[in-house]
Amino acid sequence: MDKKYEPLYLGSAYYPEDWDVSEMPKDIAKMKEMGMNVARMAEFAWAKMEPEEGKFDFKWLHDAVDMLAANGIKSILGTPSATPPRWLSVMYPDVFYIEADGNPRSHGGRRDCCSNNPHYRYYSARIAEEMAKEFGNDENVIGWQIDNEIYSWTGCFCPECLRKFQLRLKEKYKTIENLNKEWELNCWSQKYDSFNDIPSPRGTWHNPNLCFEWYCFHNESHIDFLKMQADILRKYTKAPIGSDCMPLNGLDYEKIAEFSDVIQYNHYNTKENLWVTNFWFDYLRNLKDRPFWNTETATCWNGGTALHQSIKPEGFCRVNSFMPVALGGEANLYWLWRTHQAGHELVHGGVLYSNGRPYHVINEVMDTTEILKKSTEFIRETKVDTKVALHFTSKNWNMFLSQALTDGFKYIDHLTEDAYKPLVKAGVRPDVIGAKADLSKYDVVFSPFMMTLEDGNLPENIKSFVENGGTWVAGPMTDIRTWCGTNYTKSAYGILEEITDAYRLYQIPDFDNIIKAKWADGEEFTGTSLYDVYEETEGTLASITAGHSALINKPIMVKKSYGKGTVYLLGTIPGEKDMIKLIKMVLKEKNIKPMEFEGGVTAVKRIGENKNGIILIENAAENASFTLEKKMKDILSGEIYEGKISLTPYQILVLEEI
Amino acid sequence: MDKKYEPLYLGSAYYPEDWDVSEMPKDIAKMKEMGMNVARMAEFAWAKMEPEEGKFDFKWLHDAVDMLAANGIKSILGTPSATPPRWLSVMYPDVFYIEADGNPRSHGGRRDCCSNNPHYRYYSARIAEEMAKEFGNDENVIGWQIDNEIYSWTGCFCPECLRKFQLRLKEKYKTIENLNKEWELNCWSQKYDSFNDIPSPRGTWHNPNLCFEWYCFHNESHIDFLKMQADILRKYTKAPIGSDCMPLNGLDYEKIAEFSDVIQYNHYNTKENLWVTNFWFDYLRNLKDRPFWNTETATCWNGGTALHQSIKPEGFCRVNSFMPVALGGEANLYWLWRTHQAGHELVHGGVLYSNGRPYHVINEVMDTTEILKKSTEFIRETKVDTKVALHFTSKNWNMFLSQALTDGFKYIDHLTEDAYKPLVKAGVRPDVIGAKADLSKYDVVFSPFMMTLEDGNLPENIKSFVENGGTWVAGPMTDIRTWCGTNYTKSAYGILEEITDAYRLYQIPDFDNIIKAKWADGEEFTGTSLYDVYEETEGTLASITAGHSALINKPIMVKKSYGKGTVYLLGTIPGEKDMIKLIKMVLKEKNIKPMEFEGGVTAVKRIGENKNGIILIENAAENASFTLEKKMKDILSGEIYEGKISLTPYQILVLEEI
Amino acid sequence: MDKKYEPLYLGSAYYPEDWDVSEMPKDIAKMKEMGMNVARMAEFAWAKMEPEEGKFDFKWLHDAVDMLAANGIKSILGTPSATPPRWLSVMYPDVFYIEADGNPRSHGGRRDCCSNNPHYRYYSARIAEEMAKEFGNDENVIGWQIDNEIYSWTGCFCPECLRKFQLRLKEKYKTIENLNKEWELNCWSQKYDSFNDIPSPRGTWHNPNLCFEWYCFHNESHIDFLKMQADILRKYTKAPIGSDCMPLNGLDYEKIAEFSDVIQYNHYNTKENLWVTNFWFDYLRNLKDRPFWNTETATCWNGGTALHQSIKPEGFCRVNSFMPVALGGEANLYWLWRTHQAGHELVHGGVLYSNGRPYHVINEVMDTTEILKKSTEFIRETKVDTKVALHFTSKNWNMFLSQALTDGFKYIDHLTEDAYKPLVKAGVRPDVIGAKADLSKYDVVFSPFMMTLEDGNLPENIKSFVENGGTWVAGPMTDIRTWCGTNYTKSAYGILEEITDAYRLYQIPDFDNIIKAKWADGEEFTGTSLYDVYEETEGTLASITAGHSALINKPIMVKKSYGKGTVYLLGTIPGEKDMIKLIKMVLKEKNIKPMEFEGGVTAVKRIGENKNGIILIENAAENASFTLEKKMKDILSGEIYEGKISLTPYQILVLEEI
Repeated sequence: MDKKYEPLYLGSAYYPEDWDVSEMPKDIAKMKEMGMNVARMAEFAWAKMEPEEGKFDFKWLHDAVDMLAANGIKSILGTPSATPPRWLSVMYPDVFYIEADGNPRSHGGRRDCCSNNPHYRYYSARIAEEMAKEFGNDENVIGWQIDNEIYSWTGCFCPECLRKFQLRLKEKYKTIENLNKEWELNCWSQKYDSFNDIPSPRGTWHNPNLCFEWYCFHNESHIDFLKMQADILRKYTKAPIGSDCMPLNGLDYEKIAEFSDVIQYNHYNTKENLWVTNFWFDYLRNLKDRPFWNTETATCWNGGTALHQSIKPEGFCRVNSFMPVALGGEANLYWLWRTHQAGHELVHGGVLYSNGRPYHVINEVMDTTEILKKSTEFIRETKVDTKVALHFTSKNWNMFLSQALTDGFKYIDHLTEDAYKPLVKAGVRPDVIGAKADLSKYDVVFSPFMMTLEDGNLPENIKSFVENGGTWVAGPMTDIRTWCGTNYTKSAYGILEEITDAYRLYQIPDFDNIIKAKWADGEEFTGTSLYDVYEETEGTLASITAGHSALINKPIMVKKSYGKGTVYLLGTIPGEKDMIKLIKMVLKEKNIKPMEFEGGVTAVKRIGENKNGIILIENAAENASFTLEKKMKDILSGEIYEGKISLTPYQILVLEEI
Repeated sequence: MDKKYEPLYLGSAYYPEDWDVSEMPKDIAKMKEMGMNVARMAEFAWAKMEPEEGKFDFKWLHDAVDMLAANGIKSILGTPSATPPRWLSVMYPDVFYIEADGNPRSHGGRRDCCSNNPHYRYYSARIAEEMAKEFGNDENVIGWQIDNEIYSWTGCFCPECLRKFQLRLKEKYKTIENLNKEWELNCWSQKYDSFNDIPSPRGTWHNPNLCFEWYCFHNESHIDFLKMQADILRKYTKAPIGSDCMPLNGLDYEKIAEFSDVIQYNHYNTKENLWVTNFWFDYLRNLKDRPFWNTETATCWNGGTALHQSIKPEGFCRVNSFMPVALGGEANLYWLWRTHQAGHELVHGGVLYSNGRPYHVINEVMDTTEILKKSTEFIRETKVDTKVALHFTSKNWNMFLSQALTDGFKYIDHLTEDAYKPLVKAGVRPDVIGAKADLSKYDVVFSPFMMTLEDGNLPENIKSFVENGGTWVAGPMTDIRTWCGTNYTKSAYGILEEITDAYRLYQIPDFDNIIKAKWADGEEFTGTSLYDVYEETEGTLASITAGHSALINKPIMVKKSYGKGTVYLLGTIPGEKDMIKLIKMVLKEKNIKPMEFEGGVTAVKRIGENKNGIILIENAAENASFTLEKKMKDILSGEIYEGKISLTPYQILVLEEI
Repeated sequence: MDKKYEPLYLGSAYYPEDWDVSEMPKDIAKMKEMGMNVARMAEFAWAKMEPEEGKFDFKWLHDAVDMLAANGIKSILGTPSATPPRWLSVMYPDVFYIEADGNPRSHGGRRDCCSNNPHYRYYSARIAEEMAKEFGNDENVIGWQIDNEIYSWTGCFCPECLRKFQLRLKEKYKTIENLNKEWELNCWSQKYDSFNDIPSPRGTWHNPNLCFEWYCFHNESHIDFLKMQADILRKYTKAPIGSDCMPLNGLDYEKIAEFSDVIQYNHYNTKENLWVTNFWFDYLRNLKDRPFWNTETATCWNGGTALHQSIKPEGFCRVNSFMPVALGGEANLYWLWRTHQAGHELVHGGVLYSNGRPYHVINEVMDTTEILKKSTEFIRETKVDTKVALHFTSKNWNMFLSQALTDGFKYIDHLTEDAYKPLVKAGVRPDVIGAKADLSKYDVVFSPFMMTLEDGNLPENIKSFVENGGTWVAGPMTDIRTWCGTNYTKSAYGILEEITDAYRLYQIPDFDNIIKAKWADGEEFTGTSLYDVYEETEGTLASITAGHSALINKPIMVKKSYGKGTVYLLGTIPGEKDMIKLIKMVLKEKNIKPMEFEGGVTAVKRIGENKNGIILIENAAENASFTLEKKMKDILSGEIYEGKISLTPYQILVLEEI
């Protein structure tokens, strides 16, 4: 190599505050020995950094950063707001999150304070600022993480949250009359005379529009809390800032991206759902024009005071460690370096046991450092390349939470299982994109399960995308609710009837039965879940063959032109075979050549100015195959491959065109 | 027809307050087009009728009643107490129902206020009175519904409820010594020194007698709340008054009947349990000497923010719509006319979608209007006829809630599955009757699962019924508890040992095993659930053949004479085959000829002064057959039938003797 | 017999306070007729004994004791603190237990007051003292039971409990710095500045060390409450004192034994888990040098307001009644004599129904009185004899509750199923022993699932036991946590690596898979659950054959010498076949001859100065066999047996060497 590339990072979460200082040299020596080049610290160490109110101690952390640096290991520092010290809640017992039953949380866990509480916010900001002053210019600190795994489930029910919620509604709806009208609150005499009268959604069967706003509000409160810290950090540092979030998009990643420099992501997937990480990585890489960090994953298992998951098989650790980098990241960090001596997570796998001895997967960890070193130039010189996008929006996540359409329907599960998986099986590596993404760079956009499209300029953007020649595959369950979650009353959809001449006759929420239909070519077609039935029309792709006589022969999937482009309108979730058939039909029309493979292969085409290639990772612990279009060389082994090649379980090939 | 008959009614719940006024003419025109002749309104429109405290607006409702009338559609009006406006709970936050955990309910749902709260009662009464003043003499208002689906589950735990509960106990038990004695509260040092010391049953494993009284109290509080409104309405109107209740008899329908003019009933049964509606209709028609109203049912599915049920198959809507009329009602109303634009129930089927387009079952709705028109004369000229009754009492409903006898034993499920279903299969259309029903008109009365018989004059009525020649089939699990739910200590039963010479040796609560026994004729007999074993005696019908040696050869079912009549005493739940054998034996003795059919047939003999006939409805979506005793003509098709005839799935025949 | 032996006791719980006085002579006459010689009374009769604050009435109880005595029946009296009268909670509403959600319990159940509440304690002590004054010298009162089935689940959350908990931690940890250090509370900024800041574990995901101390604290509070009463009773009586506890060892039986004269035990096992009673009896007999009392069991079924269990088959009652005596007890009492007339437990089997008629198992009860009479001399002259012990400690019970290691892992279930059952199947009748037991009288001690060994002097005692030649079978999951539940950081264990040269490489919490391994002799070996893997070493008994390559050929079970003795170190739970093989190997080395039998046999060797013999009880309701080493005579039938003999279902043989 004649050029110096930024390294790819492998490391782990390291908690020097939890160990006697005498352990530090030993621990760091072992990190170095394993080839690690990054450590993530301080995220829970508030009490160590501010042992008494206003009394700060950062020496121990300087020592750690410095000793790591001396051993070639960079530091990422976390602000510690997830775990305030006990003195804060003793001073201000009101800092605690209030559960729906009115009971407060308590000291001793994590994220038990309310992000809207002014005392908690003041002290969280102050410790972040003090850290930033200390380490903002430290060149060995290569990044900042704000808080840890912040997320809202039902939301805090403290008085501060209720008041802020009411103010947020006021800001959004302007007048109470408008809110009453948008939510149609004549129904059930629900209407309010004042924003001050709106309750938090507990204690009864609450309005889904209220619940939806409540979920959004709480996630936005968290984002506001993170942004407050980001703004402080930025005053003192040029290192990239982010917050390590989980596979939970109710907390809007697009909004996180706005104030972040680097997307940080934690996951604990297992053998069974490793492929789902690909969905998330295909999403994360598009959020910022900078490789993301996989800030947490387990080496071999995940647990707390008890094990909750299966043990991962041999090879998993290696593959799981490289996957984020292959798909657009630049770092992988394990949680955690060394199993704690005490506390809530003694049954969690790490790199070392609490007694300092390595876990049985140590060789896989060390393999990964080699793979990353050998791949650095290829990764740094190329980017993932695709012309196909799949929508995945935070707004729909929260709207499905507030109105599931059927008992237990989960947006993420259906999106990955019914749309993403068939796309991948059809040979596509899609970009997964949020509501704000630029559509113009794609040829095809898939938008299933988008209960509402009314999210910023999305309706206009989609129309413009299709007008200009794009292919939009819409539905099922797409465009059926307004921006705040109500039904359309003039049409069946927001824009779908407007931009096509499809006329929806019926919407039938049949989640129990297989919907029997046939393709226009006569082949059998099956669907599941809520389905929309159209008036007979040109461009029918599939029509119903069984069930209520009112439905027979009615279209359930149609294809329509709009401007220079095409809209595919799916009235139901096609079975996997039919979805793949549809995808291949669409790709062919757009002259997109799918990749050819059998089995569980993560195949990632990467294109650069000087280099092109493809990464292949077997992800299902089974044998697989892939058909190369060109002769290629595996950077890891130096071997040359061409044509149809075999992949062994958990094999990794980093293939460069030659 | 040379005589003018009152029409049969088909219609739906209509919420004009939820729509722009411009939608009303369109909606009403469509109702008329479909042949609908009734609409149910205003049940949730309190905020629209009283937008500010003491300021009333009924113009919009007059407009609706008038426009409906102009299109030949009558109105049923509901008092809106189920959904008070927000200003009431802002003025009086104490109106809310308090959960067992001490948390109040909240605004935004339904029935979230406490029926005992004086503020809520005052304002509920006032709005009802204002409505009555406005519409009491409106000839187009053909009926009144009070509140909506009122019911008590665990009951409200507010201070008002506790105090009223204590006062009710005082009224019932007179002295605290008496209550201590009746409940035998020396046990566990439970006894009270004052009615004021009695707690509501929360926070511990409470006494079942206390729980029983609590359940009864809360249902009675609701009934008192309804009656208060009925008394007000009656001052201003001659139209029939009722309250639309659900298939939940903890709220005593016999007490509801006392202050009601017409029984109103809501149900959402599905393909699988459609037959259970027959049980309820066989009950409802006996509560008043006036046909009941089926005030709510779904056209095609039932849901809230999510679907909870399966989609109903073709033909279901038609059959489900006619069923209540065939079995003694005169009206069927769908919930709802047009799916809401917003709120909690967007995934609920109606007649029109929120965009005004019809659901796919529209033809079934319109068929029903035809069927009802053609059947009017026959229905109006005849009544359901039977000599067999089956007991079903509210007191036992609540007593089983307080002491289930076995984990999860449900009175209604066993009564319908183990008694009603075999009766129907044996060819009987029973009257299902409450504790106060006159027994003298029946030849046979079945009383299974009547944990207590001590309900008003029931023991005397039963004795007198048997003395005068009636056949009483008692048990299993009947007469085993006193009026307040305690055990008998001098005998095994209240009256059963007194009026027979059966001597119960053992009662064994074996719910897990099949009890093996044999009939006196040697045929195998099986039973399930708690069983009573008798001393060997004359009249033994079945005796035990397996199990503990102390039980072998002991009778488990006996037949005894009392007065001119006969008592069958069932010690266990016979298997279906054996129950049918027993029923046929009893019918034969009483010279009651059962109907003959195969499959899921709702067969209803109707007798009148001028007309006789039988309605046959296939209710299981399968083929069936029925053997007619006489030649008959189907009023719907004009076809003549005789002998054994076939029925197709969901077929309806309204057969008149010719 | 030329010697007078203390009788063995059969009787029941008797509640004269719940019945009209006229019933007493009839009830007692029936007891006498059945051969009963003991009755247990007064445990819930506080309100009867102290109807008003400070006004005592014991006449009724004297009458009962005296009338029983006149009929040859002794009395055991219970202090009534489990059910205080209503006047106490009216005077002091603060007496109630507070649930985790902040809601208090209520009057009307049992054990609803807080054992730490000063008002409750004061009045509990006073009524106990008054009873003791009255009956302390009554020679017909042969024993005292304090309270009833006291136990702590999540524990009371009242302010008194929190303060006492903090004080207890202060007493135990001395300084807050020490507590912070022992629990390593730098982790997650958990550390406390004062004992006053430590919360009760509710409202968040709490530290397992905190939870563990909380569980221990609450059980200790109960013990303190019992001891307070024991101290009072002892001032007035010489009769043996105890408290009837349940099969729940979180409430430390060893501590109960310290202030008790006689161990009292309640159980409600069924056909399916009857064998588990043997485990408990094998434990109970070692707690005091005096036969224990089985104070409660059901004759035929167990229920409350509903049945929760299956009905017991014929023969069960007899076997279940004799079992405790065979295994080291001297009394068996049924709960209850006569089913209540009212209240929470009407569906519970007894000796008489509430109407005074006997249950169907009456003959089994009367058989038992005969069996006990005939066995008296043999039982009184002999004791259970064994050289093998199995550890079962209260500390581990509570520690597993606070950190389960895997979802739903239950200490008692694994201990009985994976260790006790194979021991019994291998022909061993073990003593089950607590942490304080003297090990010197055993040849072999099994210590599986002892998460921590640090319990008093246990580590030293074990070391000394092995040094002196004992065989210790340790693990799996043994010695892996410190005394307060944290991880070891210098070694993998507390003492196991110290006293052997085994070096643990890995600990893998794999609860899902079967661990495949092989014995040193090549035979297949399987294991389950969390497993420890050792460095290859001499003395390997089994090593891994499948899984991650890092594990292949690594030992999973090793045998090591220490002093004159031997340590078997189990890294996993062997499958039953392998566990039995191991046990037999160990027995052979120690020249312990196992008993030989097939099927579900409770075999109890009993040795005395003048008599030796063996009791055989078929406990699985199936045919079985046993091979006698010597010729013996059955005391019950007088028959002579030798060699391999057959046992019929539920057969009992009391065999004496001849």
